[in-house]
Amino acid sequence: MRIDCLQYANWSEKVFRQMREGQVDAVHVTIAYHESFRETVQNMERWNRWFERFPDLILKGQTVADIDRARATDRTAIFFGFQNPSPMEDDIGLVEILHALGARFMQLTYNNQSLLATGCYEAEDPGITRMGRQVIREMNRVGLVVDMSHSADRSTIEAAEISDRPIAITHANPHDWAPARRNKRDDVIRAVVEGGGMMGFSLYPHHLKDKSDCSLQSFCEMVARMADRYGTTHFGIGSDLCQDQPDSVVEWMRTGRWTKEIDYGEGSADAPGFPEMPSWFRDNRDFGTIERGLRAVGMSEAEVAGIMGENWYRFFAESFGAAP
Amino acid sequence: MRIDCLQYANWSEKVFRQMREGQVDAVHVTIAYHESFRETVQNMERWNRWFERFPDLILKGQTVADIDRARATDRTAIFFGFQNPSPMEDDIGLVEILHALGARFMQLTYNNQSLLATGCYEAEDPGITRMGRQVIREMNRVGLVVDMSHSADRSTIEAAEISDRPIAITHANPHDWAPARRNKRDDVIRAVVEGGGMMGFSLYPHHLKDKSDCSLQSFCEMVARMADRYGTTHFGIGSDLCQDQPDSVVEWMRTGRWTKEIDYGEGSADAPGFPEMPSWFRDNRDFGTIERGLRAVGMSEAEVAGIMGENWYRFFAESFGAAP
Repeated sequence: MRIDCLQYANWSEKVFRQMREGQVDAVHVTIAYHESFRETVQNMERWNRWFERFPDLILKGQTVADIDRARATDRTAIFFGFQNPSPMEDDIGLVEILHALGARFMQLTYNNQSLLATGCYEAEDPGITRMGRQVIREMNRVGLVVDMSHSADRSTIEAAEISDRPIAITHANPHDWAPARRNKRDDVIRAVVEGGGMMGFSLYPHHLKDKSDCSLQSFCEMVARMADRYGTTHFGIGSDLCQDQPDSVVEWMRTGRWTKEIDYGEGSADAPGFPEMPSWFRDNRDFGTIERGLRAVGMSEAEVAGIMGENWYRFFAESFGAAP
Repeated sequence: MRIDCLQYANWSEKVFRQMREGQVDAVHVTIAYHESFRETVQNMERWNRWFERFPDLILKGQTVADIDRARATDRTAIFFGFQNPSPMEDDIGLVEILHALGARFMQLTYNNQSLLATGCYEAEDPGITRMGRQVIREMNRVGLVVDMSHSADRSTIEAAEISDRPIAITHANPHDWAPARRNKRDDVIRAVVEGGGMMGFSLYPHHLKDKSDCSLQSFCEMVARMADRYGTTHFGIGSDLCQDQPDSVVEWMRTGRWTKEIDYGEGSADAPGFPEMPSWFRDNRDFGTIERGLRAVGMSEAEVAGIMGENWYRFFAESFGAAP
């Protein structure tokens, strides 16, 4: 089983066919960075049209039963998520509405301070806000997963404590392997996994050691080390694949409508666009390469199966329904 | 089994308890008259809060399995509907979105011309519009029932012809029994039932012979006559109960945001408010009275069971899922 817990491609039949070629059974796709509720619904409408146009390749995922159905019919189940709480605006009632429409992950912040928590690019991190506490409780109730991939440390640790259900860092790597601002320190990872949470390893070059030049072996050794340190069952893949996107999209991710100035985020003035992917992970067709890489660094078949998909599958099964 | 296929009460614990007292297993409730998409979502949020507050009395209905669940646990299943296509605005993609949020009936018009069809108060009825044809097809695809209760004759007959799936008139009576503008002529009823559709009998005084003074016997004789004429299986109840509403609400129904003048609709300048209900049907507690009234005019047990709920149950079962 193969599950990728974060992609934001310029979706097309080509990309969906590559998912099948790479035998990817489920993908968590980002459908909002800065979008309002209505704009997010429009993005869902676009997905509905893809589901209608490509019924032989993809289907909408809402529970693990949809992954089973996808596997049985040689398709990929697509699960919706947001990298920002912007789709719920200032309205806690929209949490349940968005869940009913298929949302399964929501980041409490995207780099900046939000109404709920602090992003990893802010100078100060005062932790989870008053509204944030209410929204985490509501997300727990309906089965919308708290995702802290782009959040600051204190906010992440507090979210893990406040949440009654396991939370996730869908796409990041350990900071002591690649000291990017988006990568996570030991106490943050520990808070998430000790609450039963999950972390997905990112293949976005800015999160990799040596960026685009990162070797498959270095990546896989990092995975194996993390599995040893925290327990294999807490990890999976969250590739952060942004395939076929024009550079205007990374600019939208970074600046949305919150600034009139250019913000380079993880890039820089001389490299403002999307970075080049590592040669061994171009797109969905290369999940087999990672699988072989993990075996090559000595991980067992069971561990590799867990990392490639079974750990996310178990987490999805426990996380997407209403609280008991 | 008891199903009421149209109510718009001022919802409260009192009303929900009366549903239980009247053993009403399912109610189709109106959640939009003139509301935009976002306003409709806000109304859904209010319902979500009622579902959370009164889990022992009501549950959200989306398929007949929810009616079975309601019956097994002594609750009422609440199904959402719109009396106007305003919630979908000018965006056909919202049909599927609204269905995912639980919408199961949508009138193509509410008295006036809409983007889709003509309402029963317009002087001219040019029939289903270009967009109307597209939207009926989309409603057929996802399982959102076309409801023509407030539509003009030609539009209704054309909708029945265009629709690949049975349509409904959820709340109205025959025009030859009570010649109200909202009541339906023979050719309209025939077009609906010949396509396998359903009509719910209204208890709203403006639709009754002798209005608030209508007798139970007159109502039940009308039902029996309709069953003889068109076949019992095509009929049910759609009470149009507007319990506990202030008169400002009937003004909103009639004028929305489309006029600055007062429009009395079925009322008049000296009787602008909600009319008084007939003495034998005050609210949800009186469904048993109708049941006894139908028996008293000679309908068989099977026919009475059909009218009181089983016919709508069968129609719901066939109508709310995606087209095969």
